[in-house]
Amino acid sequence: MTETITISVDAMGGDNAPRAVIHGAALALRERKNTRFIFHGRQEQIAPLLEEFPDLKGACEVRHCEMVIASDEKPSQALRKGKGTSSMWMSIQAVKDGEADVAISGGNTGALMAMATFCLRPMEGISRPGIAAIWPTLRTDIIVLDMGATIGADARQLVDYAILGSALARALFDQSSPTVGLLNVGTEEVKGLESIKEAGKILSAASGSGFTYHGFVEGDDLGKGTVDVIVTEGFVGNVALKTAEGTARQVASYLRSALKANLMSRIGALFASSALNALRRKMDPRTVNGGVFLGLNGIVIKSHGGTDEIGYKSALGLSYEMARSRLIDKIGEGMQRFPVAAVTAPDSSEPEAKPA
Amino acid sequence: MTETITISVDAMGGDNAPRAVIHGAALALRERKNTRFIFHGRQEQIAPLLEEFPDLKGACEVRHCEMVIASDEKPSQALRKGKGTSSMWMSIQAVKDGEADVAISGGNTGALMAMATFCLRPMEGISRPGIAAIWPTLRTDIIVLDMGATIGADARQLVDYAILGSALARALFDQSSPTVGLLNVGTEEVKGLESIKEAGKILSAASGSGFTYHGFVEGDDLGKGTVDVIVTEGFVGNVALKTAEGTARQVASYLRSALKANLMSRIGALFASSALNALRRKMDPRTVNGGVFLGLNGIVIKSHGGTDEIGYKSALGLSYEMARSRLIDKIGEGMQRFPVAAVTAPDSSEPEAKPA
Repeated sequence: MTETITISVDAMGGDNAPRAVIHGAALALRERKNTRFIFHGRQEQIAPLLEEFPDLKGACEVRHCEMVIASDEKPSQALRKGKGTSSMWMSIQAVKDGEADVAISGGNTGALMAMATFCLRPMEGISRPGIAAIWPTLRTDIIVLDMGATIGADARQLVDYAILGSALARALFDQSSPTVGLLNVGTEEVKGLESIKEAGKILSAASGSGFTYHGFVEGDDLGKGTVDVIVTEGFVGNVALKTAEGTARQVASYLRSALKANLMSRIGALFASSALNALRRKMDPRTVNGGVFLGLNGIVIKSHGGTDEIGYKSALGLSYEMARSRLIDKIGEGMQRFPVAAVTAPDSSEPEAKPA
Repeated sequence: MTETITISVDAMGGDNAPRAVIHGAALALRERKNTRFIFHGRQEQIAPLLEEFPDLKGACEVRHCEMVIASDEKPSQALRKGKGTSSMWMSIQAVKDGEADVAISGGNTGALMAMATFCLRPMEGISRPGIAAIWPTLRTDIIVLDMGATIGADARQLVDYAILGSALARALFDQSSPTVGLLNVGTEEVKGLESIKEAGKILSAASGSGFTYHGFVEGDDLGKGTVDVIVTEGFVGNVALKTAEGTARQVASYLRSALKANLMSRIGALFASSALNALRRKMDPRTVNGGVFLGLNGIVIKSHGGTDEIGYKSALGLSYEMARSRLIDKIGEGMQRFPVAAVTAPDSSEPEAKPA
């Protein structure tokens, strides 16, 4: 017997809500029948959509909220206006109240992070939450964080991300000691990276306590999948994610043009169509949809706002897996296993070895 | 009649030096016959290579240097040991002495930047040099900087990069007023980006003086080619460049696998082979080889160290174009046109408009 996983859904978040959300939930339910949904949003918009999906109707509850957070609302305003009333807030509140195992929204990222942090509170010992992405690589999927939850990170915050990211890797990929790398630039003797160097020392001293510290990695290690978890500050992570998405679209566009270049290439594309379709599915950004908020007392997933029902299906599947694999417990274990001594052990004031 | 362009070459820089360098120069000479080369490096290694290329032998001079900077040498050490003696230093010195129009090396980036800065000195009014990349996009090639010359940048340094990058765009793409964007993250109300916001105000006030300020752009605008020049701090620029390179290789690898997936796809690949070969050439990183050091009193180009003769040919062609288009003059013009008032005009202490 499998236990039931309850997902609390902001049905109004995202450009195509609530239609894409409800359709996505119907698709997700087909794959994971022991899912239950709590939809938060406008009853009069949600109810008619459910009529199309009797199975989903029987596996969900709709909780009416009039208020919807706009996609361009500033986080502080959203929090002030939407606290306790908006579909976004109520979806998180259900996790706090223990009614749901995980919350998901396709709404405004900044507002969702502000509300999730305010409602669920950071876990003890974690200074700031991060957003993790599941990143497809040439090897296997890996975890990359922070994707822009916060801008700027000191050594301790980078170490927090390493603890959180490796817990996610243990939960999602069932790895016992995922490898962790710190994103850096290759240039030797560069200035201004003291936070990364210091985090490297701390992680090196703590390696083996739930993760294996690999060392520094560079931007091209994201696509290679050199390590299981790549840790970086939020601005850099956000730029890297969008650069990779943009580059993938750019190359896909080059490929489409190349295959239309002449008659022979069109014939070739016909022959290869099943393989090319498989490639298209592999590169479909909707299939890896969902940022995971890490470091809070509860699991919150951010779906892309512009996605469709396929994207929501993926993000709901991810939500399910996060809850099923007891992510929060794994993070707690990771924090307990992390040696407190490591955080203070390396003497950062020690001068670097002089060249001979 | 076309004037002669003299390129001063560190013949010993890079993994495949001097062989790849000399072969690349022979290829570059075929395309631009009015090029002259000064090769700095070990006479006994360079001379035999030149025997293969009589045309090149007649268009070059070899200056013997015994000392070669190692690829893992720290910049400060390289500068101490190699100043006035190494092939890298001597290649830059020839530009300073007015013997050459541009210098190029495939050696250690940090060492090259340290030596170039020490030898040529930053231009008056420019606090720190930057490294610019020519970035292929869905629209056209664009300029992105800084690629990691320095880590961390305040508002004034970002503005310097905008002046330098737009001068490069005017020189290389023959644009009169290239559009300039500042790389940022999409999240509203994020903290820690004061330098970018402040630079945005300055550029906005100065828009029209040799460039058109577009506003903020995000990581995916790199591949789209939304603007002609994208300005960012060196750590972010370096990660973005390597992430894009890595992602392009990742997608190319997916494509190769897809086309080998089954008999039909193999047949398809045969039919489409000419189009796929054209795509491969388009995506060949060797064809866009060369980082441009900007902000110094002289032009220095950094070639990828691991490239072959095709890569050197590209980087030498880029060097030629930089010299021919009188990049340094264009930067000088750009700095003169930039309104001094703009740098101090916007009152950054003014509180942001309160939401109604």
